[in-house]
Amino acid sequence: MRMYDVIKKKRDGMKLSADEISFFIRGCVSGEIPDEQIAALLMAIYINGMCGEETDALTKAMAYSGYVQDLSAFQGTVDKHSTGGVGDKTSLIVAPIVAANGCTVAKMSGRSLGHTGGTIDKLESIPGFRTSLSPDEFERQLSDIGIVIASQSGEMAPADKKIYALRDLTATIESIPLIASSIMSKKLAAGAESIVLDVKTGKGAFMTDIEKSRALANEMIRIGKASGKKVAALITDMDAPLGNAVGNSLEVEEAVSVLRGEGPSDLTELCLALASHMISLSRNIPFDNARAMAERSLYNRDGLEKLRELIIYQHGDPDIIESPELMHKAPIKEPVISESGGFISAEDALCIGNAALALGAGRESIGASIDHSAGVLLLVKPGDRVEKGQPLAVLHGKDAKSIIKARQIVLSSFSISDKPVSARPVLLDVFLG
Amino acid sequence: MRMYDVIKKKRDGMKLSADEISFFIRGCVSGEIPDEQIAALLMAIYINGMCGEETDALTKAMAYSGYVQDLSAFQGTVDKHSTGGVGDKTSLIVAPIVAANGCTVAKMSGRSLGHTGGTIDKLESIPGFRTSLSPDEFERQLSDIGIVIASQSGEMAPADKKIYALRDLTATIESIPLIASSIMSKKLAAGAESIVLDVKTGKGAFMTDIEKSRALANEMIRIGKASGKKVAALITDMDAPLGNAVGNSLEVEEAVSVLRGEGPSDLTELCLALASHMISLSRNIPFDNARAMAERSLYNRDGLEKLRELIIYQHGDPDIIESPELMHKAPIKEPVISESGGFISAEDALCIGNAALALGAGRESIGASIDHSAGVLLLVKPGDRVEKGQPLAVLHGKDAKSIIKARQIVLSSFSISDKPVSARPVLLDVFLG
Repeated sequence: MRMYDVIKKKRDGMKLSADEISFFIRGCVSGEIPDEQIAALLMAIYINGMCGEETDALTKAMAYSGYVQDLSAFQGTVDKHSTGGVGDKTSLIVAPIVAANGCTVAKMSGRSLGHTGGTIDKLESIPGFRTSLSPDEFERQLSDIGIVIASQSGEMAPADKKIYALRDLTATIESIPLIASSIMSKKLAAGAESIVLDVKTGKGAFMTDIEKSRALANEMIRIGKASGKKVAALITDMDAPLGNAVGNSLEVEEAVSVLRGEGPSDLTELCLALASHMISLSRNIPFDNARAMAERSLYNRDGLEKLRELIIYQHGDPDIIESPELMHKAPIKEPVISESGGFISAEDALCIGNAALALGAGRESIGASIDHSAGVLLLVKPGDRVEKGQPLAVLHGKDAKSIIKARQIVLSSFSISDKPVSARPVLLDVFLG
Repeated sequence: MRMYDVIKKKRDGMKLSADEISFFIRGCVSGEIPDEQIAALLMAIYINGMCGEETDALTKAMAYSGYVQDLSAFQGTVDKHSTGGVGDKTSLIVAPIVAANGCTVAKMSGRSLGHTGGTIDKLESIPGFRTSLSPDEFERQLSDIGIVIASQSGEMAPADKKIYALRDLTATIESIPLIASSIMSKKLAAGAESIVLDVKTGKGAFMTDIEKSRALANEMIRIGKASGKKVAALITDMDAPLGNAVGNSLEVEEAVSVLRGEGPSDLTELCLALASHMISLSRNIPFDNARAMAERSLYNRDGLEKLRELIIYQHGDPDIIESPELMHKAPIKEPVISESGGFISAEDALCIGNAALALGAGRESIGASIDHSAGVLLLVKPGDRVEKGQPLAVLHGKDAKSIIKARQIVLSSFSISDKPVSARPVLLDVFLG
């Protein structure tokens, strides 16, 4: 088999066989297929598409291109995945809620590029928290407390990593089969029986169009079911940031407030929805029952106690729950003042994310360090009424230059209208597998 | 400007500006644009196409990416280009005919990969023949005898070289705008006023479909005219090899026989057609007059004498004209015997080319050495009647192993029919600019 012929076939709009797709993925990982050939195939896939069978084969080949986690010794394993957005700290909230309700949450997370860090970076805001666990430590913790959130032990789906880096260079990101196979390959390698997908849509998501988000959700459900998984997908708003906190330690603090039942309503609602679907799939119980269980975990603080157990087991300081100031705090905190009065009609998530990045909360290149204390704390949300001179947000940073830059970006992110506006709800659609 | 955005625009089927195309070509040559981005853009161009303005901009940007030959001091400069085929030794014949009729032929040739060598390799079959000339030597010879055939002095169209290598890896060769701009960029850099294009079509050409060959011819004429050149294009057959000789010294010998008026009819006819169009464009005279001049050059052997002048001026041994055995001869000459009788209905040019390559007449990788004496001499042509046991061809090689391999390939290249067949004519169509 020659890569040239595989490229030619897809170039001409023909269907690739599972063997051809495996050959491609093996060659990506071994390095035998040069980057220019991979790039050409990716563009041909972007333009000419892939059918379901091709996407399934691509997903499986990528999933099995590296370390595959074996969770078969555990019952009710459940995972979640978000396509990524600004202020998305849901994993820190739903994983403890779900684990508190008898599900097994073995979460492997990365340190992706972005406006803020990934789940692992957020957890590392907690003094002492260990994210690098050996396979033995990982399994023991899962048996003992039913929840682990750790960085990847082996290299999972290395083909996806390689292909993603090339897609990022070659303008081939926004392709449903490529996105769906990328996400689902990592979920299959992570090994859980049930998967709940949070597909973000809007200005701060990489899919801005809701119809494309729905198509992606359905494709991921189809792939998951074809691999014997139980899957649900939620389409959720990412026009505005999720919750009020954007930045690593600020988000941990906000996660704690949600687990106390005192969090922002949009974030709380989304976490309850995600957790309910996870419990329902994992325990095979009706959604309404699962929803009642998830809500109870907030009222009785079972979720918060499970987070405490997680922090303690992974050597973090549990006192941050009562004293969030124990997490390193930014030296400068500056409000952003509204220059006019009216109703917040939009709060551009992408802008807020860029402001957080300017403050040092995220990474622009692989391996760059991040400032866990930096970020943006929003004080108003779309639909709120504001007066001229009222603070809209507080910037957390370490130098005047980045604060000045971030203030401009945050100010530009707000649209203020004369007339009352109603905000888009956070949960836009649900698809069950 | 970012290459990412250029790729995205073409990916989405939009038209690239001349500035975007120049940016791309500059980045190709400087190495600032990585191969994977070039490959992705090439695939997007392959699938989504390019309009005339884009193709013109691409051609000019590639032409001016390296050395551009200045022939403005000379009158009636004329060049020819063949898209390449098996047994194509027309340059060795038409350049002397045309120069003998007062045109100026300054031909820069390469040593391309292929079943046999390029024009330069063929000329190097002649003992002593120098193909590497300084710019001064080049100009002096052109003034003195009106004909030079040499290897490239500066690096012409380096962007095309880089892009072609990537197209070859990424299945993006067969694209009209990419082929047309590749050929025409080199012709613009070569500097002649008039250009005659020989667009091959059929099994041994890289375009097998005659309609696509016509589209390519028209696109190249359009590009040439847009750059102020006089252009004509011939669509010619490449189902069967051109003439009888395939292999470097064998082809020089056959070229001499055509210039004596004793060559195979298909090759002679094509050379007369090409030469007539070159003379007509270069001297601005009616085609019929030019045709009469070209024919006279065979009868009175002006063309042959011009070839002799060329060989002498470039330090080759002119005695090869009378004594072709002075060119190094293959140690083994073995006939290929027909296993059945009937009429030759096809003689697959690609197979014959592969047989010549197996015998050592061509190169499979850049810089590989070639055996000037190796090749295939055909004894029959499509339409001929053959008896079982009659020799179809003679193989010229240096070892039994390659002879055995080549014999199998040559045998498989012939199709023999019970009923008489008429061969496709060599000249299929002509387009005038």
